[in-house]
Amino acid sequence: MKVTVHRKAHFNAAHRLNNKNWSEEKNDKIFGLCNNPNYHGHNYELIVSVKGEIDPETGYVIDMKILKDIIYEEVELPFDHKNLNLDVEEFKNLNPTAENIVVVIWQKIKKRLDKDFDLEITLYETPRNFVTFNGK
Amino acid sequence: MKVTVHRKAHFNAAHRLNNKNWSEEKNDKIFGLCNNPNYHGHNYELIVSVKGEIDPETGYVIDMKILKDIIYEEVELPFDHKNLNLDVEEFKNLNPTAENIVVVIWQKIKKRLDKDFDLEITLYETPRNFVTFNGK
Amino acid sequence: MKVTVHRKAHFNAAHRLNNKNWSEEKNDKIFGLCNNPNYHGHNYELIVSVKGEIDPETGYVIDMKILKDIIYEEVELPFDHKNLNLDVEEFKNLNPTAENIVVVIWQKIKKRLDKDFDLEITLYETPRNFVTFNGK
Amino acid sequence: MKVTVHRKAHFNAAHRLNNKNWSEEKNDKIFGLCNNPNYHGHNYELIVSVKGEIDPETGYVIDMKILKDIIYEEVELPFDHKNLNLDVEEFKNLNPTAENIVVVIWQKIKKRLDKDFDLEITLYETPRNFVTFNGK
Amino acid sequence: MKVTVHRKAHFNAAHRLNNKNWSEEKNDKIFGLCNNPNYHGHNYELIVSVKGEIDPETGYVIDMKILKDIIYEEVELPFDHKNLNLDVEEFKNLNPTAENIVVVIWQKIKKRLDKDFDLEITLYETPRNFVTFNGK
Amino acid sequence: MKVTVHRKAHFNAAHRLNNKNWSEEKNDKIFGLCNNPNYHGHNYELIVSVKGEIDPETGYVIDMKILKDIIYEEVELPFDHKNLNLDVEEFKNLNPTAENIVVVIWQKIKKRLDKDFDLEITLYETPRNFVTFNGK
Repeated sequence: MKVTVHRKAHFNAAHRLNNKNWSEEKNDKIFGLCNNPNYHGHNYELIVSVKGEIDPETGYVIDMKILKDIIYEEVELPFDHKNLNLDVEEFKNLNPTAENIVVVIWQKIKKRLDKDFDLEITLYETPRNFVTFNGK
Repeated sequence: MKVTVHRKAHFNAAHRLNNKNWSEEKNDKIFGLCNNPNYHGHNYELIVSVKGEIDPETGYVIDMKILKDIIYEEVELPFDHKNLNLDVEEFKNLNPTAENIVVVIWQKIKKRLDKDFDLEITLYETPRNFVTFNGK
Repeated sequence: MKVTVHRKAHFNAAHRLNNKNWSEEKNDKIFGLCNNPNYHGHNYELIVSVKGEIDPETGYVIDMKILKDIIYEEVELPFDHKNLNLDVEEFKNLNPTAENIVVVIWQKIKKRLDKDFDLEITLYETPRNFVTFNGK
Repeated sequence: MKVTVHRKAHFNAAHRLNNKNWSEEKNDKIFGLCNNPNYHGHNYELIVSVKGEIDPETGYVIDMKILKDIIYEEVELPFDHKNLNLDVEEFKNLNPTAENIVVVIWQKIKKRLDKDFDLEITLYETPRNFVTFNGK
Repeated sequence: MKVTVHRKAHFNAAHRLNNKNWSEEKNDKIFGLCNNPNYHGHNYELIVSVKGEIDPETGYVIDMKILKDIIYEEVELPFDHKNLNLDVEEFKNLNPTAENIVVVIWQKIKKRLDKDFDLEITLYETPRNFVTFNGK
Repeated sequence: MKVTVHRKAHFNAAHRLNNKNWSEEKNDKIFGLCNNPNYHGHNYELIVSVKGEIDPETGYVIDMKILKDIIYEEVELPFDHKNLNLDVEEFKNLNPTAENIVVVIWQKIKKRLDKDFDLEITLYETPRNFVTFNGK
C-alpha cells in the first residue's frame, strides 16, 4: 500500500538548443529560435514525486523537509539563475532540451533517495510544454 | 529509457448531450441541463502526452512543432468554434460526452504518430471536470 | 476604510456573435468563426467584487452566503447550460460579446446590492481573454 | 477500452501532526510547526479519478452527479470546516498527515463505487505539496 | 510615472469566526460552520503590491529581497502554522475574517515601507474567496 | 460607460541585471544571482488591458484580432526567444528589470492604440513576482 508524495520547486535559467556536431544551418533548421547564440530562458517549474510505504510512526512517506533539502542541493542551487549550457557541468556536452534536463534531474535526485522509493520528475519548461520521466 | 512530452492546446465548442434512441423524458432525466436543445458550450483544454525514446541527435522525443501541427490539423481546425453535434462528423451519431470526445481525439492523433510512441490525452471540459484516455 | 471582497462563480453557455442589421458577409468578416450559425461555447468564469465598509459586529463587508445566493439567482440560474442568444432575454437583441455580457451581469447584481457598495465584475470568456466592468 | 473521469472537490480543515506515543520533544523535533497544540489548517483540494468502461447508452463512465454526491457525503460533509483531529472519527487515533488522509478518503469512496471501477485520489494539502493513492 | 510591483507569499493557519459578545445561537446563525469551536483552517495566499517610482540606478521600485524579508517578518513568521484566534495577538479581540486579516496585514507592512509607496494587499482565504485592501 | 478588455500573451527570454556604471562588486551586492554574466531567463507572461467604450455596432471595445496582432508585432516578435540585453534595442542601455520592461512594453503598445483607450500592462517575470504599469 504505497502513497506518492509530490513536492513543487522551481528555477529560472537561460539555455540554447544546439548540436555541436551539426552545421549552423542544420541547427537553425531543427532548433529555430531556440538556437539563438545569445540564449533565451525559462521559469522551469518542477514536480518531484516519491512513491513509497507510509511510515506508521510518522504517517509520512518521506519527511518533506528532507525532500526539500535534496531538491535544493541537487537542482535549485546548481541550476537557478544559471546559464545551463555554460554554467552547469551536465549540459556542457548534452543539449539542454526539457527531455535531457528531466533525465539529469531524475538521476541526481534518485541517487539521494532510499532504494525502496520510486521517483518521477515532471518539468514544466513553459506553462504549455512539459515533460515527465520515471526511470523506465 | 522513455520520456513523456506534454503539449497543451484548446478549443471552444458548443454541444448537447442526447441519446437519439431515448424519449425526451429519459434524455432530460439522465442528461438534465446538458440536454438543452439550444446547446451550451465549453472551453475545452487539452493535454497531448507522447511517450518515447529521446533522439540522441536532437535531444527531443518528438519535435514540438510537428506535434503542434498535428494537434492543429486533427483537433483545433475541425473542433474550434464549432457545434460538436452539428458540425463535426464524428459526433453526428455519437453523444459528445467528454469521454467520447477524448477517445475520438486519441484515435485521430494516434494514427498520425510513429507506432513506437505511446499516447495519452487529457481533456478538461471545465476546470473541475476532466477525462483521460491512453488507448488501454 | 473600505475592503473589497471577491467571489468566484462560473457558468457554461453557447453563443454566437452576430449583428442582425448586417449582411452575412459583413458578419463573417467582422466576427469570423464566432459567427458560426450553429453556435460555439465557453466556460465563463466570473469574479464578483464588492467594496464597502467592514461591519464591526460581523467583521464582514457582506455575508458571502448572501452574495453567493445573489450570483446564483442573477447569473448561474439564468445563464448556466443555456444558449445566450436563444435562451436569455437580455441577449435576444444584444450581441453576446464578453463586453456586453459583463455589463448585463453588473446591472443585474448592482440592483440587488445596498447602494453603498461599489461593484466590479470580471468575466473570463477563455483563460486568455477577459473583461472588467465597474459601472464607470 | 477504459477512460478515467476526474472530479475536483475541496474542504477546509484544521489539523495537528502528533504521535501520542512520543514525548513532546520528539513530536516537536519530527513535526516542527505542524505540531502546534492549537492547530493550523489548510484548504484541501481533491481530485477523485474513476477509471472504467464507457457506457454506450450514456457515453458516461459514471454519472458525475452521482460521483459528486458520493464525494459530498463521504468527504465534504464529514471533513469540511472541521478539526480533523477532534471532529473526525478516523483521525482520533491516526495522525492526519496528507498521506493518511488520502488513504482514508480512498477507502471511503472505494466502497461506494461499483467493483469494476479503479479509483485514484489526489489530495493537495497546499498548492505546493500533494499526495496520490490508488490502492496499490 | 509609477510602477506597481507584486510579490506572492502564503501561510497556513487555523481560525474560527466568533463574536464574543453574541450568544452561541447568534454566532451559529451568522457564522455557521465557520463558528466550529474546534476551529477549521486555510492556506492563505497573499499578494503584496507596492507602487512607487522606478529608481533609475537599480531599475527597481523596491528590492524584492527587502520586500520578501518584510513579508516574512510581519506575516509568515507570526501567522504561519498558527491558530489565529489563540496564537496571534492582533486577533485575540478581533474576529479573524478575511476582511479583518487583510487590514491587519496592510497595517503591519505599511509601517515598514517608505512613506512614498502606496500599498495594496490581496488575501486569498480560498481559491474562490479573496479580499483586497489599499488603505482607502 | 467603459469596459476593460484583457488579453494574455507570453515570451521566453534571457536577461541579466547589471548597471554598467557600477563596479562588479556593487553589481553583485545589489543584483546577486541576477547579475550572472552568462545570463539567466524567464517565461514572461503578459496581460494587456485596454479600457474604452463598447462600440454599439460590434459589441467590442477593440477587436481582439487587432489587439493580438499589435502584441505580436510589438512584443512577441522582438522579445520572444531573445536575450533582452544583447538582442533588444531598448535594453542596450536600460537595465531589463521587470519594472523597466513593463514600461517599455506599455510605450510600444500605447502608440499603436487609438488615443481614447486607456492602457495597463501586467508582466509576470515569474508566477510569484509581477509588475503593473498604466502610464500614470
